Amino acid sequence: MTDPIILGTVALDSLETPFGKVKDVIGGSATYASIAASFFSKPGILSIVGKDFPKQNIKLLNEKGVNTQGIATGNKTFRWQGYYEFDMNEAKTIRTELNSLESYKVEIPEDYKNAKYIFLANIDPELQLDVIKTIKKPELIVMDTMNFWIEHKKEQLLKTIDKADLLILNDSEARQLFDTPNLVKAANAALKLHTHAVIIKKGEHGALLFTDNKHFNAPGYPLENIKDPTGCGDSFGGALTGYLAKTQDISEANLRKAVVYGSIIASFNAEDFSVERLKSVNKSDIEKRYKEFKAMREF
Amino acid sequence: MTDPIILGTVALDSLETPFGKVKDVIGGSATYASIAASFFSKPGILSIVGKDFPKQNIKLLNEKGVNTQGIATGNKTFRWQGYYEFDMNEAKTIRTELNSLESYKVEIPEDYKNAKYIFLANIDPELQLDVIKTIKKPELIVMDTMNFWIEHKKEQLLKTIDKADLLILNDSEARQLFDTPNLVKAANAALKLHTHAVIIKKGEHGALLFTDNKHFNAPGYPLENIKDPTGCGDSFGGALTGYLAKTQDISEANLRKAVVYGSIIASFNAEDFSVERLKSVNKSDIEKRYKEFKAMREF
Repeated sequence: MTDPIILGTVALDSLETPFGKVKDVIGGSATYASIAASFFSKPGILSIVGKDFPKQNIKLLNEKGVNTQGIATGNKTFRWQGYYEFDMNEAKTIRTELNSLESYKVEIPEDYKNAKYIFLANIDPELQLDVIKTIKKPELIVMDTMNFWIEHKKEQLLKTIDKADLLILNDSEARQLFDTPNLVKAANAALKLHTHAVIIKKGEHGALLFTDNKHFNAPGYPLENIKDPTGCGDSFGGALTGYLAKTQDISEANLRKAVVYGSIIASFNAEDFSVERLKSVNKSDIEKRYKEFKAMREF
Repeated sequence: MTDPIILGTVALDSLETPFGKVKDVIGGSATYASIAASFFSKPGILSIVGKDFPKQNIKLLNEKGVNTQGIATGNKTFRWQGYYEFDMNEAKTIRTELNSLESYKVEIPEDYKNAKYIFLANIDPELQLDVIKTIKKPELIVMDTMNFWIEHKKEQLLKTIDKADLLILNDSEARQLFDTPNLVKAANAALKLHTHAVIIKKGEHGALLFTDNKHFNAPGYPLENIKDPTGCGDSFGGALTGYLAKTQDISEANLRKAVVYGSIIASFNAEDFSVERLKSVNKSDIEKRYKEFKAMREF
């Protein structure tokens, strides 16, 4: 069965980092998230591409076990052009072309409607809300967003958050959305919005999981060689949701494991451009890194 | 026996944070470090104050079990004036008056000379080197520094690092000293300088411990209310060295515990101005927080 369902963008990215340059490579939040989820379960994408989208990219997703039935075809694929400076902490955008995303209306394949795990990756919060309304009996709705929506569609974003169970934000988004420099305060504010749990991603510093009375602090993996951080946040959310869909267990203890698997897949993703590294990662690589995560925090 | 020995500044600080303002309160790297160490062992300070230094501050240190025999008296106490902005990540200096520190020559009381654990808190690296030369048979020399010395006395600083066993830096200092944005690369560069271990402090994001083949990732404690972060790094290093002096065990496994105790004392320190919070912390507070540190990283 197709589960989780992943809504987000499928894109053609052109970008430069201090370690190289790529043009028109596969990118987008749903791409990274679904490949990341595919290590644990059988995800289905909801997105749109254009007629210019190379067939081999769809083939790559299918080879990873990703259901692409929910990828609509419009005129031209969403494109992002950007670069990273020396410290690679923040993507700088040169140009965003929404293209077919501008008129995208979500249409959900019958196959997807019984899915229990939903990951609403970064995309317009109104589209995220449309998907929430369509899934019959969701067990867990995970959502991500970005500063653009906080700045331009805050009201709609808060409506969507109200319907989600697990909110994922990065640290600067959490500070911005809840207007406080203190991440604990931001997390507490988020927990008041009907969310069951909040995860704050901190890039190389790991991730924090907050639930009602508990706090989990996941480390970042100490990467010596980072080539391209694009899609790390999406990979994190996708792997996390994929792991939850596989284990069908949303207890706090299992959410912790899901956060660690999210961090692991994100750490692999940063090691090469686009989805190159994720193409070759296998289960034993993942389990090896899981053991390393355990070992580096024991005391 | 007096052990560890802590070299650093004893100061009168005047500062403002979004949560209040204090004037001429006790501060300085050796003050924070020695009070932090006093929870675990019997530290002795090496420093200098002026005739203007209030007697009750010395009394406070003595009440905490800190040996103050090694505090010389000069003309006027070192003073620092600064403030923190809303995010409290970085101290901004308004004024530094070196005063009696300018002509300070370290004189080590006989009592101190057999100490095995040395913490060279932030101070001129030439003074740090003087102390290294005087202690008879040190078991472990821990040293801290700051960006000022990296910028103004890099050559002397590198000489001192060469004689130290455990180097503590914060993340921006590590990046600056080793000229790389990547903390793993910075740590590897530091390990090549004859150091046995390197700790990179990351403020609210915790601390990283690097030894030859191992990596430990200590979380930051999720503080909702931070009043004044002054002295957190010094408290970290002092508590860490105090714990090592108590346990007389410098294995990697015990260094991990020392890092956690360092983080715990630093987290208490941020909860109030100057050393106010450290005055009232007791052993059961510390052990309670130790358990919380364990619980928040289990998966």
